[in-house]
Amino acid sequence: MTAHIYTAFDDELKYLMRRISEMGGLAEQMVGESVRALVNSDAALAQKVISDDVIMDTAEREVGDKAIVTIAKRQPMAADLREIIGALRIASDLERVGDLGKNNAKRVMAVQGTGVPRKLARGIEHLSELAMTQLKEVLDVYTTRSAEKAKSIRDRDEEIDAIYTSLFRELLTYMMEDPRNITSCTHLLFCAKNIERIGDHATNIAETIYYMATGSQPEGERPKDDTTAAFGASE
Amino acid sequence: MTAHIYTAFDDELKYLMRRISEMGGLAEQMVGESVRALVNSDAALAQKVISDDVIMDTAEREVGDKAIVTIAKRQPMAADLREIIGALRIASDLERVGDLGKNNAKRVMAVQGTGVPRKLARGIEHLSELAMTQLKEVLDVYTTRSAEKAKSIRDRDEEIDAIYTSLFRELLTYMMEDPRNITSCTHLLFCAKNIERIGDHATNIAETIYYMATGSQPEGERPKDDTTAAFGASE
Repeated sequence: MTAHIYTAFDDELKYLMRRISEMGGLAEQMVGESVRALVNSDAALAQKVISDDVIMDTAEREVGDKAIVTIAKRQPMAADLREIIGALRIASDLERVGDLGKNNAKRVMAVQGTGVPRKLARGIEHLSELAMTQLKEVLDVYTTRSAEKAKSIRDRDEEIDAIYTSLFRELLTYMMEDPRNITSCTHLLFCAKNIERIGDHATNIAETIYYMATGSQPEGERPKDDTTAAFGASE
Repeated sequence: MTAHIYTAFDDELKYLMRRISEMGGLAEQMVGESVRALVNSDAALAQKVISDDVIMDTAEREVGDKAIVTIAKRQPMAADLREIIGALRIASDLERVGDLGKNNAKRVMAVQGTGVPRKLARGIEHLSELAMTQLKEVLDVYTTRSAEKAKSIRDRDEEIDAIYTSLFRELLTYMMEDPRNITSCTHLLFCAKNIERIGDHATNIAETIYYMATGSQPEGERPKDDTTAAFGASE
């Protein structure tokens, strides 16, 4: 009987892990496709990303429902309970990543045809590649549950931040050069900020995995805010 | 014995509710003070908001720890379990509201002395008043647990969105008029977006309260995204 209960519980944990992995795969894809749509002015691809967001929303709700039913039915303790609470948190972060990808996709039409310079488009692409790598690695760590690896990903958000800051600066310069660039560059600023936030969510997930593996939060503050907030203050 | 356990559990729920209310009060205060600091170029007040964010981070961690210990110890079912999972979610939304207030406070120095027109400052103030009202009402509903009221707050996010959109438009115009406005107006754009996101978090909390009270998600999609993403697309 006990063995049977354990097996059923393991199945439920496996279900949660599988759904999280699926959500992670879709989140990565949405981020990649939204940036591709932006760079290539591909309205059809943007539309696909926007529709895919519904799948993410549904998946988050289903993970949430399953998590709560599992806690109520199995009454898990310690590591098992952390596993389920962690799944809830990760699903929520991934759903937000999907939202950010969708928001970027929505900006494709606004930027389309405004002649975004190649250099700025490359900057956005580069930023998104970093964010996607971080997301991919964190999802791999979710499978292996290495607390050490989770901690190292969490400590690496600064690279994204540095690129975001230089892109922010470039976009402002470009806006100042010609007022006709203002609308499209504003959208690109929000796109860049969205991608920077995707990196933040990857970092949140890394922290959650660390917590799932160890039962405690990783030590030391991490910079959760970008450095552009003060940009211009001393100029 | 059972009576004793129930009392202890009630105490734990009361503890969570009290902490959530405290977090809510501080979040409101941070949002209000950050906008006041922005409008009055008050660097000292901005600094206070930035330091207050640590209190929010600590509170979220403590609510999380308490929630998990309570689930493990009391093994609650149904409504009691939803109560605790709901507290986790609400704490996470309030912590994000604090982050957004802090991010706005950080922009005070960048905007200071750039002569933000009174009209734009009023626009930001108006937007933040709406977001704070929404936050205040949702925290009241957290105390009364009225599912009906939670649903009506959730359905009202559109007002904030409309004001945000008109402010977005005004800020772009102002940037186009004079390139020297671009840096400060970009910060104000992000401030406005942050406040719009605070409204989103209030809406999330309303949904969580509805879920706590009824065990299900409120029906019908709500617009989680702002409408400015497509702004300029047809122009």
